[in-house]
Amino acid sequence: MENLQSAVDTLIHGSNTLFILLGAVMVLAMHAGFAFLEVGTVRHKNQVNALSKILSDFAVSTLAYFFVGYWISYGVNFLQPAAVLSHEHGYSLVKFFFLLTFAAAIPAIISGGIAERARFAPQMCATALIVALVYPFFEGIVWNGNLGLQAWLQARFGASFHDFAGSVVVHAMGGWLALTAVLLLGPRNGRYRDGKLVAFAPSNIPFLALGSWILIVGWFGFNVMSAQTLQGVSGLVAVNSLMAMVGGTVAALLVGRNDPGFLHNGPLAGLVAVCAPT
Amino acid sequence: MENLQSAVDTLIHGSNTLFILLGAVMVLAMHAGFAFLEVGTVRHKNQVNALSKILSDFAVSTLAYFFVGYWISYGVNFLQPAAVLSHEHGYSLVKFFFLLTFAAAIPAIISGGIAERARFAPQMCATALIVALVYPFFEGIVWNGNLGLQAWLQARFGASFHDFAGSVVVHAMGGWLALTAVLLLGPRNGRYRDGKLVAFAPSNIPFLALGSWILIVGWFGFNVMSAQTLQGVSGLVAVNSLMAMVGGTVAALLVGRNDPGFLHNGPLAGLVAVCAPT
Amino acid sequence: MENLQSAVDTLIHGSNTLFILLGAVMVLAMHAGFAFLEVGTVRHKNQVNALSKILSDFAVSTLAYFFVGYWISYGVNFLQPAAVLSHEHGYSLVKFFFLLTFAAAIPAIISGGIAERARFAPQMCATALIVALVYPFFEGIVWNGNLGLQAWLQARFGASFHDFAGSVVVHAMGGWLALTAVLLLGPRNGRYRDGKLVAFAPSNIPFLALGSWILIVGWFGFNVMSAQTLQGVSGLVAVNSLMAMVGGTVAALLVGRNDPGFLHNGPLAGLVAVCAPT
Repeated sequence: MENLQSAVDTLIHGSNTLFILLGAVMVLAMHAGFAFLEVGTVRHKNQVNALSKILSDFAVSTLAYFFVGYWISYGVNFLQPAAVLSHEHGYSLVKFFFLLTFAAAIPAIISGGIAERARFAPQMCATALIVALVYPFFEGIVWNGNLGLQAWLQARFGASFHDFAGSVVVHAMGGWLALTAVLLLGPRNGRYRDGKLVAFAPSNIPFLALGSWILIVGWFGFNVMSAQTLQGVSGLVAVNSLMAMVGGTVAALLVGRNDPGFLHNGPLAGLVAVCAPT
Repeated sequence: MENLQSAVDTLIHGSNTLFILLGAVMVLAMHAGFAFLEVGTVRHKNQVNALSKILSDFAVSTLAYFFVGYWISYGVNFLQPAAVLSHEHGYSLVKFFFLLTFAAAIPAIISGGIAERARFAPQMCATALIVALVYPFFEGIVWNGNLGLQAWLQARFGASFHDFAGSVVVHAMGGWLALTAVLLLGPRNGRYRDGKLVAFAPSNIPFLALGSWILIVGWFGFNVMSAQTLQGVSGLVAVNSLMAMVGGTVAALLVGRNDPGFLHNGPLAGLVAVCAPT
Repeated sequence: MENLQSAVDTLIHGSNTLFILLGAVMVLAMHAGFAFLEVGTVRHKNQVNALSKILSDFAVSTLAYFFVGYWISYGVNFLQPAAVLSHEHGYSLVKFFFLLTFAAAIPAIISGGIAERARFAPQMCATALIVALVYPFFEGIVWNGNLGLQAWLQARFGASFHDFAGSVVVHAMGGWLALTAVLLLGPRNGRYRDGKLVAFAPSNIPFLALGSWILIVGWFGFNVMSAQTLQGVSGLVAVNSLMAMVGGTVAALLVGRNDPGFLHNGPLAGLVAVCAPT
């Protein structure tokens, strides 16, 4: 009986660690998706720059979140003995890995927004500041109850602010920061000639589409594994995500005037929208 | 004791949901593989078209199968309360997702077959009809015992028609439909000059190879997760698939006269062949 | 009670089979990563050759390891009835699949090293010999205690040679064999003109980066699933791998003089280094 209990406990903790690890790996892969979506979208001369930025952004984000950001949002740090960190198959470490891949999505989203506008070194500094301080501040308020805002909302309105998988915490924040950055940086050189907008066509639709597909596939890790334990896995979340992706694709098909770049952003728009309510 | 029973039940249902979800995600990724296999194989001017078609086909297939096809093949619809759909971690929803990725493979296979031959809108209509009606009709007969054919075969010959992972239900059906469509549509413009065949070389071998690799990797989800529950997982299926893939590669290497496009279709031929008997 | 015990046993064996299968699939995907890393790095005229070589190498390696190599390293062969092979969900077969993806990495690593230097047929013969005989000889000594070297080290120095996920057994052996082959084969034609080194720039940075990302993502299967059972899963291994990848990236960023090819090899260097001690 005790042996059985112990075997079941091992299964539970091992499964949870594997579950969230699969999520982390799938969202890590999404960063390759961000890279290729940007590679295909920018002009040919900026393709290589886009690739280097996304990889470097991820590395800087990891350090910023590991040493500062995660402590701000969740009050947890990892400067502890390996024996402590290995508790329950190192679940707490993999949870960090999973949430890091969310945090690092912020600079990746911004990077796509300000593509072809920013220099390398200042962008890395901005990444470090955002992932160490700005994002964790809001993440902690929404997902860890920091500063009591969620408790106040619950008491005042009977419900806290609900964002299951980061529609606002991740995607909207990335979008707002990117919009601010775009307004500050201004239009790209050569974008207006004699007051008229000059089209910058995507340089490579296959790479753009590759990025979109990688993001689509990885997104199921983003949404489903946001449950964080195998007990919480939900097929409803998976199929809601699928339907949002399909809805976005159909919408882009109907209004997109056969623009293949627009079409391949459709499923992503649907998936961004569904993160919160899934 | 009861707590233990309940913990084990949660593990079983959660694991099954995760198991078939992994299959669904892996076969979803295969659709990117179909896209890039076609991108690399067609002429340069049709690359973008191939990408748009595959993504749109998947979206149309999802709607057709969700609202009509799945009901025809399995008698199940999803216009039910979320509480019902969430039963056993929403396993029934993820099973739909998994089987959808099979159903959507039919138009993807056909799309590759009739590449460079069909207009966009008629192809989408054909996709809707095939995934809503044609495929589910046969799928239901073979995999759900519809119309009693399997029972009759069992009674008459002592064995029903066995197709574990869709060699016939998915791949052969896709192939036959594609062949019919190719015969109806005729050869591509410019394919014959003065009665002689003009070679249309693949436009991009790296994209073709990328598509092939994505398909190879995803296929292990196609075959292994066809068991549909973790209790049914079988390493024998995995290694049979591996050996079929390798056999197809070696065969293509020996007879392919150093044609890299032919070589990269070899593992796919092996994997198609092994779906039924694994 | 007995039913419960049996349900738990099924969960344990099923989960272990799934666990190591996920590792096998992830490392199988890494072979696409090897292919694209090489495609992007070599000159344009050799891209197709690189793709054909990696796929063929994998097929030859599978046959060599299945029929000879695995028997040398672990004393196991698979010429047995399917009922025996299916024991515990076919765990022993999937373990073979997992370890095969390691073995096949040896010729893939060598292939990258001697890219543009070797003819196809001799390279296939070398692959067969290495994966059938050379690699399993050393693998068996380190990971299966063959020839008693590990026992002797343990007795003599109090510790055996520790290589959790193959820093030496896989990566260093691949590197040493590649170095030997490079020295034997000599520099590529046209590499020196009038005694001066001529730069051969990578032909395609996006493909190189794609290969690097595929390898990065798959590596988490390489390292984490080296535990071989779900009971052994460790978040510490995952996050150590993550940190090594990030460390390698940052190092390449600091010393790489904005060379994007160098930068994208940085995370791979970090991941190679961390395989042993994770």
